[in-house]
Amino acid sequence: MAVNRRTSRDIRSESRLTVMRALLAAGESTRNRLAEDTGLSIGTVSTVVSDLLKHGIITETGQVGGSIGRPTTGLRPNADRGRVVGVYVDVEEAYLAAKVYDAELGELALAEATIDEGLDDADTVIHGIERVLGAALERARANRDDVLGVGILLPGGTRRPVKVPVAAPNAIWLHLDRLRDRLGLPVVVENPLKAKATAELWLGAGRRRTNIVTVTLGIGVGAGIVQDGVLTRGSSDSAGEWGHTLFTFDGRLCRCGRRGCVEAYLGADGIRQTLAEIAPGHPLAAEPGRRRFLEALAESPGREAADTVERTAHYLGAALTDLVALVNPEVITLSGWTARFLGERMLPIVRRRVAEESPGDAAADLAIEISSLSDPGMTGIAAVALERFMRDVGLVTTRMLPAI
Amino acid sequence: MAVNRRTSRDIRSESRLTVMRALLAAGESTRNRLAEDTGLSIGTVSTVVSDLLKHGIITETGQVGGSIGRPTTGLRPNADRGRVVGVYVDVEEAYLAAKVYDAELGELALAEATIDEGLDDADTVIHGIERVLGAALERARANRDDVLGVGILLPGGTRRPVKVPVAAPNAIWLHLDRLRDRLGLPVVVENPLKAKATAELWLGAGRRRTNIVTVTLGIGVGAGIVQDGVLTRGSSDSAGEWGHTLFTFDGRLCRCGRRGCVEAYLGADGIRQTLAEIAPGHPLAAEPGRRRFLEALAESPGREAADTVERTAHYLGAALTDLVALVNPEVITLSGWTARFLGERMLPIVRRRVAEESPGDAAADLAIEISSLSDPGMTGIAAVALERFMRDVGLVTTRMLPAI
Repeated sequence: MAVNRRTSRDIRSESRLTVMRALLAAGESTRNRLAEDTGLSIGTVSTVVSDLLKHGIITETGQVGGSIGRPTTGLRPNADRGRVVGVYVDVEEAYLAAKVYDAELGELALAEATIDEGLDDADTVIHGIERVLGAALERARANRDDVLGVGILLPGGTRRPVKVPVAAPNAIWLHLDRLRDRLGLPVVVENPLKAKATAELWLGAGRRRTNIVTVTLGIGVGAGIVQDGVLTRGSSDSAGEWGHTLFTFDGRLCRCGRRGCVEAYLGADGIRQTLAEIAPGHPLAAEPGRRRFLEALAESPGREAADTVERTAHYLGAALTDLVALVNPEVITLSGWTARFLGERMLPIVRRRVAEESPGDAAADLAIEISSLSDPGMTGIAAVALERFMRDVGLVTTRMLPAI
Repeated sequence: MAVNRRTSRDIRSESRLTVMRALLAAGESTRNRLAEDTGLSIGTVSTVVSDLLKHGIITETGQVGGSIGRPTTGLRPNADRGRVVGVYVDVEEAYLAAKVYDAELGELALAEATIDEGLDDADTVIHGIERVLGAALERARANRDDVLGVGILLPGGTRRPVKVPVAAPNAIWLHLDRLRDRLGLPVVVENPLKAKATAELWLGAGRRRTNIVTVTLGIGVGAGIVQDGVLTRGSSDSAGEWGHTLFTFDGRLCRCGRRGCVEAYLGADGIRQTLAEIAPGHPLAAEPGRRRFLEALAESPGREAADTVERTAHYLGAALTDLVALVNPEVITLSGWTARFLGERMLPIVRRRVAEESPGDAAADLAIEISSLSDPGMTGIAAVALERFMRDVGLVTTRMLPAI
């Protein structure tokens, strides 16, 4: 029968993550202040702090003089507990990157590589990951023994191919055991939607709110949905595919094979198509790179470019309204190239449109913001790797992480 | 900071509801079998059973001989613990109904009334509810002192008017204290979307699954989203307004004021408009009552009616795909007039379309079914009233219920 019921073990797990995240947000704190910040009882916080101290994930900093009462022991994350590494695999650009973080998710070093021969098969990807990971660890002067976990950020959204003719990421899903053997390190794979939601929970909007939606606007578009502080995974870990919800029935052909998806209007190629509709033959539309197209669109002084951005803002407002209507979040954060290059310009129209179109008072207290995180995908996958380590030592329960 | 964190009190609350629902499903059971059915530990079940016994919500039935081991004590819901009443207010049809249930949600009696002068102001509604409630209790031979709670089922979706010119339901929201004073009974109000999801959790699809979506197809359309056994309410209790997500950008005008909403294609008036597009001037389109229109459409032997049903099935499949993409449920149940009159005919197309259009393997294990409940709205609001009673005696925490 029911297998997904929450148990008190899950609650302990959530409390540990909550306290850990609150301590990361504060930098240094005390048991009492963590109780205030998290809303957990002082008893729960004390228990959780003991658990985290035992595993060396946080550390005591000696007596902290309080303005009232006796001095209490300070606490802070133990940055030197080890290192976590985020790895980003961009098949289209044949680009790989690895970033090393300390155990409080502070960035230490980055290594990048462009693979001339492309990333078309699993062997090339695995070899590339090995190289870029090694280079990043060297730059961070990190020992392999210090690595608590490696997170691989892989677009794709779901386990099975999304009818998109991109072989390599799926190949990685299929060859994950081999990757783990080659690296000799704990490996976890997650898609950008869920990694970014995790980043917001650890270091961004999720520090202050428990109902958040993190929207990615890049080549693909999608959402991470967090309800009551927990990421919505769905029954087969496929939730969040907002990019493949309807924007217009029988509308533009999406690369997933369906017609009228949100992504066909708000993905990079969708925005290019909007430009082509507004100004057929416009030179910008011929720009082959998606990232470069978006950057050029943002910089273009022309009227057609401005109209394209404006129309895209209306499309975005309309499509975000669907998320407001369905899950009624407190905040929506935007990230990805489109958010970076065009976000601030689009926000006024987006906010107005969402406020006007959302049902009832669903958007009355809603904030729509560009993500405050500089690299949410990478930070998120590092946070996922850290959560995975916390799972391996028994601090968090498995259901919060993908089953690999 | 965070106010919505789950605590161990919430988990106890969820465990009590889980055991209570499992016992309702089984009719009669034992602590051991409840542990098997719910996946909870025998220790948790024993504690929960003691709590429920203490409040008289369940009762022991004496020794049950097991095929192995010593006989154990049987358990069953205590139907005579009291009565709960569901009240349905249909402003459009100026129709009121009250149904009395025993404490295991068995139906005892129904009373109905049509108000000639209409339901245009709060006084008329309050007076009407008083009358119909009194009549239903009389028919059930129930004493007012036995009433554990009254649930009022009110369309509207959100607290603030959804830009729909219907005054009375909002009037009720505003005059709830007065209604409670007049009735002299505990009153809880909920919208049909959330009430139906609660009904499925207590007596329907939610007995076997924890990730479900309950879709209502009537004058309005909407969804109740249940993740891990918990109803998604959102930050201001407005989640589930699937009817006001996009079907076609800039498409048909919806009665909410927005263009292109799902409801403008799948609500009763939307289906009527589809018929009018397929067969302008078709006599069925002039049928004034929405329910009668849907019933007549189902019974019509004509080609145009069949085409309308077929096109509506395609629309429904496309729109349900959005729910699959976003929240990835195990089951979607359909209820409401359209589901009742046209559901079985539409299901083959709906299922095929959802399977084809859902991203990745999100729909691989998905079931789409007509709700097995005969009156999910009424049963649901009665279940909400029962939950409210369980809250009042301290068995469940407040966050699971609306804040009124």
